[in-house]
Amino acid sequence: MASTEPYRVVVLVSGSGTNLQAIIDELHLPDDSGVTCALVVSSHAGVAALDRAAAAGIRTEVVAMVDHPDRAGRDRALAEIVSGATPDLVVLAGFMSILTGAFLDRFPDRVINLHPSLLPAFAGVDAIGQALAWGARITGVTVHFAEEEVDAGPPILQEAVPVPYDRSADALTSRIREAEHRLLPSAIRLFAEGRVSRDPSDRRRVIITEVQSR
Amino acid sequence: MASTEPYRVVVLVSGSGTNLQAIIDELHLPDDSGVTCALVVSSHAGVAALDRAAAAGIRTEVVAMVDHPDRAGRDRALAEIVSGATPDLVVLAGFMSILTGAFLDRFPDRVINLHPSLLPAFAGVDAIGQALAWGARITGVTVHFAEEEVDAGPPILQEAVPVPYDRSADALTSRIREAEHRLLPSAIRLFAEGRVSRDPSDRRRVIITEVQSR
Repeated sequence: MASTEPYRVVVLVSGSGTNLQAIIDELHLPDDSGVTCALVVSSHAGVAALDRAAAAGIRTEVVAMVDHPDRAGRDRALAEIVSGATPDLVVLAGFMSILTGAFLDRFPDRVINLHPSLLPAFAGVDAIGQALAWGARITGVTVHFAEEEVDAGPPILQEAVPVPYDRSADALTSRIREAEHRLLPSAIRLFAEGRVSRDPSDRRRVIITEVQSR
Repeated sequence: MASTEPYRVVVLVSGSGTNLQAIIDELHLPDDSGVTCALVVSSHAGVAALDRAAAAGIRTEVVAMVDHPDRAGRDRALAEIVSGATPDLVVLAGFMSILTGAFLDRFPDRVINLHPSLLPAFAGVDAIGQALAWGARITGVTVHFAEEEVDAGPPILQEAVPVPYDRSADALTSRIREAEHRLLPSAIRLFAEGRVSRDPSDRRRVIITEVQSR
């Protein structure tokens, strides 16, 4: 990277943190990535994701719903903490809580989410179970801009994942996780390289430039 | 094929018939395919699909809505004509008219349709335009069992198609057509080989066996 200041990512988590681990391994730890994980915020205390962050020397915070009167209050507190880390990008990596405008409006076009399907198919909870129940032959993974309408923001990257012929939920979950661990670091890298933008004349159109401009 | 009697396919069309042409080239004309196209029925007179059928020596019929009092009447007439060709499989190949139970109930689990998206995403008309407008990075093609609810029957085969980076509708349409011309003959071949069935305990689950059993 030509830039001397690393690209600052804040990662929001809720659980095991395997996608956080992919970000740590692919981007945070390698010195030449140009990306640093400035902060990890969990919606729950005591989750493994916090241990992964601590083990990589990343600062952690917990912002739990139970400590706030309502979602908007939680989102304002979360925004303050995230903002304090001056992120270039906010990454929802298995963050299992809905964010409102009180949070999202503070970071316009700088919050991305990961969803285990080829959106718009199988939005919402248990996307893998939905795909299996529907009988899909192909599902996948989407990294998209987070917007107030859940799982509806425009996709940045998508990767198709074939459903195993035996429809094994374990095997499909494993394939989806592998794709997630590829796609999310790839998307962050594109942002860090300054290659992602939204077409102002068509906000659903995400432009990825070929040439590095950062 | 071990069987001496060819597998009989009736193809329903409405327009240019490029998917019919793929069936003709891949299955009807090759002597060793074990598949014959017994009849082509168009919902409209004068379309190119009828010329393609005639050029391949396939019998043609036209069953137009305008000649019938209502959809159910049209579907009964259509079912009579199709039934007269004793099909093993009825293939909707760009057939642009909704079929009711008056037709579908006559050929249980023997009517398949082609849709230019990875269903359940982008069901209905102009699936390619829908995918572009939504900002999809990946769309595709689905061959599925036709049911009364349009584009909702369980998939038999699906193929992912990446959206070109320039979002060119022409380039995407061309990629989708190529995938269609691969996928529809492949699906018919699986049926002809006796390898497609539906799980009686879960009707959304289409089973494709590995071993040829026909």
